[in-house]
Amino acid sequence: MNDSRPQPSDIPSDATVPKVVVSRISLYLRELQRLQAAGQQTISSGQLGTLLGFSDAQVRKDLGFFGQFGYPGVGYRCDELIRAMRDILGTNQPWPVVMLGVGNLGQALLGYRGFGRQNFSIEAAFDADPAKVGQTIQGIRIRHVDELADVVRTKGIRLGMIVVPAERAQEAADRLVAAGIEGVVNFAPVTLALPPHVQIVAVDLAIELEQLSFAVTSKLAKTFGEPPP
Amino acid sequence: MNDSRPQPSDIPSDATVPKVVVSRISLYLRELQRLQAAGQQTISSGQLGTLLGFSDAQVRKDLGFFGQFGYPGVGYRCDELIRAMRDILGTNQPWPVVMLGVGNLGQALLGYRGFGRQNFSIEAAFDADPAKVGQTIQGIRIRHVDELADVVRTKGIRLGMIVVPAERAQEAADRLVAAGIEGVVNFAPVTLALPPHVQIVAVDLAIELEQLSFAVTSKLAKTFGEPPP
Repeated sequence: MNDSRPQPSDIPSDATVPKVVVSRISLYLRELQRLQAAGQQTISSGQLGTLLGFSDAQVRKDLGFFGQFGYPGVGYRCDELIRAMRDILGTNQPWPVVMLGVGNLGQALLGYRGFGRQNFSIEAAFDADPAKVGQTIQGIRIRHVDELADVVRTKGIRLGMIVVPAERAQEAADRLVAAGIEGVVNFAPVTLALPPHVQIVAVDLAIELEQLSFAVTSKLAKTFGEPPP
Repeated sequence: MNDSRPQPSDIPSDATVPKVVVSRISLYLRELQRLQAAGQQTISSGQLGTLLGFSDAQVRKDLGFFGQFGYPGVGYRCDELIRAMRDILGTNQPWPVVMLGVGNLGQALLGYRGFGRQNFSIEAAFDADPAKVGQTIQGIRIRHVDELADVVRTKGIRLGMIVVPAERAQEAADRLVAAGIEGVVNFAPVTLALPPHVQIVAVDLAIELEQLSFAVTSKLAKTFGEPPP
C-alpha cells in the first residue's frame, strides 16, 4: 500500500459532502458486503457501478470526496474498501441507540437484524404505557420514558429513534434533545422541529412504493438506468 | 399557460431517468405538500432547493427530465407542480397493494398513515400462520397466502410488499411473481432474485442510522449541504 495516499482521517474537517453522496456510500457498502460474503476479493469501479446502476465515473467521484482508494489494474480490495466506508460512515465503532415507542413498529425494530450488521444496537427502549414498562421484548426490557435522560447519560448514547404515533412525535423529539441526543431517526409520518445542532433523518415508508409506481407506470425495465453524462 | 409546453405525457417512452432523480421527485412532492398544507401557493426552484439542500439548478434539471413547469417571474404553482409530480410518479391514481407477512412490522404497516396520503392502500394481507388467518387487523382481514394469486387477479393488483422473515422472503417473492405482481418492496434484510420484468425496491432500515452516524461523527451541522458545482 502506498502510505502517501490520503486516508479518510485526512479529510478536511470543513469539507461539505452532499447528502446524496453519503447515501450512495451506504449502497456501495452493502453491495461490497454482499460480494465479500459471496467470496469476491476485488472489484473495479465499473463493476461496482454496474451492479448498482451508476457509472464508474460516479463511483470514483463519490469515493474521491473521502480520499484515494484502490490499485491501478486491480481495482479495489473489497475488505479494504469496506473498512474505509465504515470509517467514513463512522460504523467501525458500535453505536448504541435508544428507541422511543414500543408499539408494533417498535417491536419489529427490536428484532430487526439489519441494524446489528451495520454496528447499531438498540441499547434501551422506552414507552409511556405502564402496561408495557417492565416487559422484556427481544431481550430488551422496556423502561419508562422518564428514565430516558439517565440512561442516555450513563451509557453515553448519541442516537435515538422516534417510533411513537405522529401526534406524540414532537414531544418524543423534545425529550431526546433534552436528554442530549445528537441525532434522531424519525419513523413518525410528521415533520419535527429540532434545534440545528441535532441531526435528523426522516423515514417515509411510502417513498419506496412511489419509486415502484413510477417504474411500473413508465413500464420501462431500464428506467432505473445510468445517469446521463 | 402556454399550451406548447411539453407535458409529462409527452416524455419519450424510451427516456432513461436516473433512479436518484425519481427519489428526488418524491422529496420535492413531500415538501410541496407540506408547503401547500401551510397555505403557500407558489415557490421558486431556489426556495424549493434551499428547503431540501439542493441547488436551484439541480431542481430545474430534475424537473427538466419530465417537461417544462413554472412561470417566469412567478416560479411554480404548488398545486400544479404537485399534480405534475403525482402524474410523473403514477400516484394520481390509487394503487392497491398486497402485503405478505403480518408479524409486528406487517401490523405496523397496516396502520401506517403515510401510505394513504400518497394514494397507496394495503388492499389485502396474507400470512401462512393459521393462527393469524381470519383475524382482522386495522380493518384488514388476514387471508391465507394460498389465496394470493386469486386476489391479485380479481382485484387487478400490481404491487406487493414482502414483510416476512428473511429466511422466507425468497419464497414470498416467488409467490408474488407467480401471481403476476409487477413491482415488489422488500422489507426483509436479504437480497432477492427476481425476473427482470419485475421491479424491486429494497428497504434497509439501517441506512438512515448510517446517515446519522456519519453526520454525528463528522460533527458538521453543514455536512448535508449543497452538491459542489
